[in-house]
Amino acid sequence: MKTDVQIAQEANMLPIAEVAKNLGILEDELELYGKHKAKVSLDVLKRLENKPDAKLVLVTAINPTPAGEGKTTTNVGLSMGLNKIGKKAITALREPSLGPCFGVKGGAAGGGYAQVVPMDDINLHFTGDFHAITSAHNLLAALLDNHLHQGNALRIDPKKIVWKRVVDMNDRSLRNIIVGLGGKGDGVVRQAGFDITVASEIMAILCLATSMSDLKERLSRMVVAYNTDGNPVTAGDLEATGAMALLLKDAIKPNLVQTLENTPAFIHGGPFANIAHGCNSVLATKVALKLADYVITEAGFGADLGAEKFFDIKCRFAGLNPDAVVIVATVRALKMNGGVPKTELSTENLNALEKGIANLERHLENLEKFGVSAVVAINKFPADTEAELELLREKCAARGVEVILSDVFAKGGEGGIALASKVVKICETKKSNYAPLYDVDGSIAEKITTIAQEIYRADGVDFTADAKKQIAELEKLSLDKMPICMAKTQYSFSDNANLLGAPIGFRITVREVKVSAGAGFIVAITGDIMTMPGLPKVPAANGMDITEDGVIIGLS
Amino acid sequence: MKTDVQIAQEANMLPIAEVAKNLGILEDELELYGKHKAKVSLDVLKRLENKPDAKLVLVTAINPTPAGEGKTTTNVGLSMGLNKIGKKAITALREPSLGPCFGVKGGAAGGGYAQVVPMDDINLHFTGDFHAITSAHNLLAALLDNHLHQGNALRIDPKKIVWKRVVDMNDRSLRNIIVGLGGKGDGVVRQAGFDITVASEIMAILCLATSMSDLKERLSRMVVAYNTDGNPVTAGDLEATGAMALLLKDAIKPNLVQTLENTPAFIHGGPFANIAHGCNSVLATKVALKLADYVITEAGFGADLGAEKFFDIKCRFAGLNPDAVVIVATVRALKMNGGVPKTELSTENLNALEKGIANLERHLENLEKFGVSAVVAINKFPADTEAELELLREKCAARGVEVILSDVFAKGGEGGIALASKVVKICETKKSNYAPLYDVDGSIAEKITTIAQEIYRADGVDFTADAKKQIAELEKLSLDKMPICMAKTQYSFSDNANLLGAPIGFRITVREVKVSAGAGFIVAITGDIMTMPGLPKVPAANGMDITEDGVIIGLS
Repeated sequence: MKTDVQIAQEANMLPIAEVAKNLGILEDELELYGKHKAKVSLDVLKRLENKPDAKLVLVTAINPTPAGEGKTTTNVGLSMGLNKIGKKAITALREPSLGPCFGVKGGAAGGGYAQVVPMDDINLHFTGDFHAITSAHNLLAALLDNHLHQGNALRIDPKKIVWKRVVDMNDRSLRNIIVGLGGKGDGVVRQAGFDITVASEIMAILCLATSMSDLKERLSRMVVAYNTDGNPVTAGDLEATGAMALLLKDAIKPNLVQTLENTPAFIHGGPFANIAHGCNSVLATKVALKLADYVITEAGFGADLGAEKFFDIKCRFAGLNPDAVVIVATVRALKMNGGVPKTELSTENLNALEKGIANLERHLENLEKFGVSAVVAINKFPADTEAELELLREKCAARGVEVILSDVFAKGGEGGIALASKVVKICETKKSNYAPLYDVDGSIAEKITTIAQEIYRADGVDFTADAKKQIAELEKLSLDKMPICMAKTQYSFSDNANLLGAPIGFRITVREVKVSAGAGFIVAITGDIMTMPGLPKVPAANGMDITEDGVIIGLS
Repeated sequence: MKTDVQIAQEANMLPIAEVAKNLGILEDELELYGKHKAKVSLDVLKRLENKPDAKLVLVTAINPTPAGEGKTTTNVGLSMGLNKIGKKAITALREPSLGPCFGVKGGAAGGGYAQVVPMDDINLHFTGDFHAITSAHNLLAALLDNHLHQGNALRIDPKKIVWKRVVDMNDRSLRNIIVGLGGKGDGVVRQAGFDITVASEIMAILCLATSMSDLKERLSRMVVAYNTDGNPVTAGDLEATGAMALLLKDAIKPNLVQTLENTPAFIHGGPFANIAHGCNSVLATKVALKLADYVITEAGFGADLGAEKFFDIKCRFAGLNPDAVVIVATVRALKMNGGVPKTELSTENLNALEKGIANLERHLENLEKFGVSAVVAINKFPADTEAELELLREKCAARGVEVILSDVFAKGGEGGIALASKVVKICETKKSNYAPLYDVDGSIAEKITTIAQEIYRADGVDFTADAKKQIAELEKLSLDKMPICMAKTQYSFSDNANLLGAPIGFRITVREVKVSAGAGFIVAITGDIMTMPGLPKVPAANGMDITEDGVIIGLS
């Protein structure tokens, strides 16, 4: 079979202006970035204010293997399948990060015959949104360190600076650094560090903002440090808001591209779901809802992380009302969750599969708690056996959930028709009773405990001494009545990446609690989750190339 | 008068597709970035291979004041003036850096009625070229540190790593840092630092490359460290070339915009002239030469830095044959060079002016050494008196050089007609005898001394012990037969920013010598010149804003 980038480079793309026109986007509302990418003006929202929204479908997944389980692929294939059965569908995805692209995982534009294109541009700089976020983030950091250097009028405590720098790269050496060495003119010496751009609070804000003025208000509220009295110092205090907003003036606009079968795709914003809230932008989702019958969106990693935050953070803030959930699994990943080592995933193993299905079942149970109906999509692999699929069907049927085979990687939209038909049936016949899991007015500890017990099935939560102190401070500052954004490994329901399947009898340890006052949530960091990934021994970057004629090699 | 950004936001821009069409660029050779920016395919060069080149005019300046003396403004105005007198002109400029934009100087898209537009986009992210360079540079840094972390098979000496990281921001705190702190998984502890993106060797390479394959060859030659035997380790050794080239696949293509009067403008690449070679890209210049009668280009800061490198590095490498030079001065800056303090520049002062004119005279003498005819353009200010202008005319006439008043800031192209006519006259009547100043086959010390004595008029050059050692190492490695890229303050002919006018009786100190093997030159660092600027007490960023309707405030 051809590689992803080969298939993508052979795509029959429509001019993006034509894709936009078919959606009813006016010429003045479109800004082209080359022939096949465009930004869409937020004026669309105003113009179509009174138009009813499309159906909103979330694609989520079981706990993934390190290579991902085809959530984006299934999402893209489902949107193409819907078009095949006469529905006007749009897919709304996140933008890929350069870090994993050059590291282990590769890009994130789907796979096989279910990709968004131009995949090379989408996986590289795209329309520059991440670079704009990186610039705005690092401008604030430079202004902060310059403020210290120029006399520190705000009396910032150099030991209580919480604003790090960011880079859109996997670079472990930048996790813990000391800045400001050298001579007198070289700034103030202090400990500092870099996160990956997708972990930036500005990324979360871009994804949650509903307008430029909302974006600016959120930027100005961001806490960058505490002063010597222990009170928060914000980006607004540093007079950084306007310049940051200026850097984000185009990044705030949703990006329009298309799938291999010319289905419109909004790809905008890209927080990871293990260290951030994991959803594409509210603005892209809202624009898409005005332009289609069905909007297929995603939330990162497994449903314990992405879906929970989609419901408890994104939908709650944006007033969205999701109509259905697709939960993606592969037989391989279920077997891995059942204890099969990576090298033996191609062998039939009904015992292990049955154990692994417990992972899927728990996710299904959890989704019921949000009041939205679900369907299981099995992303088909050649080695899957009929006995394995039958076992899966049986198990899910016992919960009243149907299992649909998705073959979009090999067949594109054609392979997604069954799933599309099922999704339409749910949306047309089952009323959504969406509600978030917890009330934001609970205490920080209560909210974290609710998520840990209801979703992860932990026996309880242990807060480290540091975390307890941080919670007490946030409560004192009245910065506690917000939803929780859990930072946790994506590989397990627990905070231990090795506890696969549906573990019980464990506790969750929260080691750090901090406020993202601009994003509007409290981040609770568990286990050894890191906000800056590292590169592997042989990074994907080593195998990449481009020829004089523009043929791209090694991007996936 | 209106602010620059007000004038720019009221511009009557043509669709950039129309500007391109008028230049004879084919539709397939154009990639739109919004309605008013585009990238131009390198295929143009191949298609027009046999077309004769336009006349090439360099705009340079006397030693500037900290605010700049209107070099870009004069360049833009000249190109519009040429169009007014019926010549097909293109301006070829550098892209602005975000660092100075948010620091002291503001943007770099000209001023008043002689600007390139859309100035807001040009001054902010533009088409993402700088971000692409930043990403490629930092990918290489991450791969390098990861190589150390993963076992260091290339035996890189951690004390002899010369590849820093970059950020397009003025951030003094990042000049000297320690990376790799933390635990075992957090990389190798070592001293490191950040430069501003414009100082990246990749910026220089992008500006000197003649094709994608040339770009790749240059990238692969870049020396990032030395191994424990003292031999260079290159980007090629780290298998980073292909991935970096992929990140630069669009950045290599010249950007097309327009002036306020719709003159085509190629804005591409942006190395500073005090810490790098200071010229826009060879590819943009070459493309422009195929599409016009006159190409007006620039080189950064005063002629001692920018023009010298334009002739000795850019023209030499690219086989360009410049036809004329415009040297820009203001009466204010000449008086400042004559010892007048900043606060008294608006008062007539013929004595000080006469002293300051010595600076201009020396630049004129220097330009003669490159064999290209010059004209002086006085960028008019309201406070200039007739007596001052007359003195200037007299002094220049004594050297056979005409002085032309340029009033393009207030009047646009109309104010540049006199200058345009003079430039045409020089190009049509005077044969250029361009030749570089020195032979690359000389020793490093000889070449540096030639520049210091012939251009700066130093009595001689002192090399620090470190610099001597570095020179000896480069000679041993046969990395010495390249042109020199001097890093020196822009404010003086000397390496002391306070020695204004036409100083004599000084020596130049070279404190560091390093190879940019990919760019193809040796960098000689003098005085306390820094490759990472800092922010001032009140950064320009503090006054910037954007409204909900997209009105921009504070960008200049």
